[in-house]
Amino acid sequence: MAPYYRELAIDPAAPVPSSNRTAFNSIMCDVVEETKPDVVSFHFGLPEPALLQRLKAGRFLVMSSATTAAEARWLEARGVDAVIAQGYEAGGHRGIFLSDDIATQAGTFALVPQVVDAVKVPVIAAGAITDARGIAAAFALGAAGVQMGTAYLWCPEAKISTAHRAALKSARDDGTALTNLMTGRPARGIINRLMREVGPMSDVAPEFPLAAGALAPLRAKAEAQGSGDFSPLWAGQAASLGRDMPAGQLTKALAAEALERMRALAASKT
Amino acid sequence: MAPYYRELAIDPAAPVPSSNRTAFNSIMCDVVEETKPDVVSFHFGLPEPALLQRLKAGRFLVMSSATTAAEARWLEARGVDAVIAQGYEAGGHRGIFLSDDIATQAGTFALVPQVVDAVKVPVIAAGAITDARGIAAAFALGAAGVQMGTAYLWCPEAKISTAHRAALKSARDDGTALTNLMTGRPARGIINRLMREVGPMSDVAPEFPLAAGALAPLRAKAEAQGSGDFSPLWAGQAASLGRDMPAGQLTKALAAEALERMRALAASKT
Repeated sequence: MAPYYRELAIDPAAPVPSSNRTAFNSIMCDVVEETKPDVVSFHFGLPEPALLQRLKAGRFLVMSSATTAAEARWLEARGVDAVIAQGYEAGGHRGIFLSDDIATQAGTFALVPQVVDAVKVPVIAAGAITDARGIAAAFALGAAGVQMGTAYLWCPEAKISTAHRAALKSARDDGTALTNLMTGRPARGIINRLMREVGPMSDVAPEFPLAAGALAPLRAKAEAQGSGDFSPLWAGQAASLGRDMPAGQLTKALAAEALERMRALAASKT
Repeated sequence: MAPYYRELAIDPAAPVPSSNRTAFNSIMCDVVEETKPDVVSFHFGLPEPALLQRLKAGRFLVMSSATTAAEARWLEARGVDAVIAQGYEAGGHRGIFLSDDIATQAGTFALVPQVVDAVKVPVIAAGAITDARGIAAAFALGAAGVQMGTAYLWCPEAKISTAHRAALKSARDDGTALTNLMTGRPARGIINRLMREVGPMSDVAPEFPLAAGALAPLRAKAEAQGSGDFSPLWAGQAASLGRDMPAGQLTKALAAEALERMRALAASKT
């Protein structure tokens, strides 16, 4: 990153903010028990057995992401109440935890029915579901529900940078890639200058989550100037299908449109 | 490939069969005009303008694969009658032709609606469509039809090797990868010994289609012994959802099941 530090006139000895990402621990579990959310959802597998036991004892619904049918079976065997089948198209971090082979990760269209066949718990589809067509398709594949991320980044409530919002609005189907440059783990974002110049996947990226620290001063300075050159511009491959609409309104519109789409589909084929 | 030639006791100076793959040419166009198929479908773009003109003049329906919305628009501008939106999950060769960047290829779930929004001609979905759930989902995403490849490799009529058939029957969602080892161009197949040992994508693979020639003697000897170690085991990411059933019977079963699935879906949500 040295040439970029020089270009942006940042002292390479300047303190690098350490990441606040940590694994789910006992203190976080205390917070869950205090605030009593309906659902506790994990990524990158599950917390240690004692903590999982506390959550189960508290009757919280526990879910986690699977990127393969094998991960789905692993999660089910440990007692999750639902599995989120995260297809290759999804924005942000891959939840992959039984392997690190990105080359064999399946797309939503392939993953959802194979996960549905592999487990008995409900399956929530994730990855490239941004509009009513996607919701209807996820149900057709056998999902019991959908998890939509990028669609809600479009909402005015989303606390994303100006550069991130602009990138969403000009998103293309072929405009994202998996990158480990931002945090050390593979995650999907809109291709920016850093990803283009360094290549989205690097063998020398610092280990998760340390890569984020090395980029933090560059990111802060660039974002202050309205640039997303060094920022993670998380987005799925269907980002272009999003709509700029308040979150509550969007949720209601999507539900109504998905229902209408399923009805129209059945009617058109009979 | 030298160590493999030695292991299988093949003379490296043995004649390497040249590939019979060639681009669509005037002689092939003669055959089309003689045999009058309803549809002429291309991969890797379109033939030269004069040949395309002959096909249009003969009123054949012309289609070709698009792996991005940009490719779909390119094809539509040149007069195709339908676009095949080929998602990342698809088995066999990527139809990619305006780029060679595999990292940005979109999954079926993301690609189909974005191609539908990009062009006016009918869109045929391809990639991970192996059962009735996939057909219903493709229609939900806006496709006017589906193209199914791997599903029909399961049929007894398919002239695939014993090793290929066995690989299909034990296929997993995370058991395929894109590889350029087999022909020089990226294509999806079930991971075999060659892909595992060399790595599925190689910077030194011979140019398309020459890589196939270098492998041919290894492939022939291994297949004669029932091994798929050096064969292209083409398959999409939903290969496991296939059924061993004669092709005609499979087509009728899939059509009936997809219709029933769309009806049941609409009914369950109302």
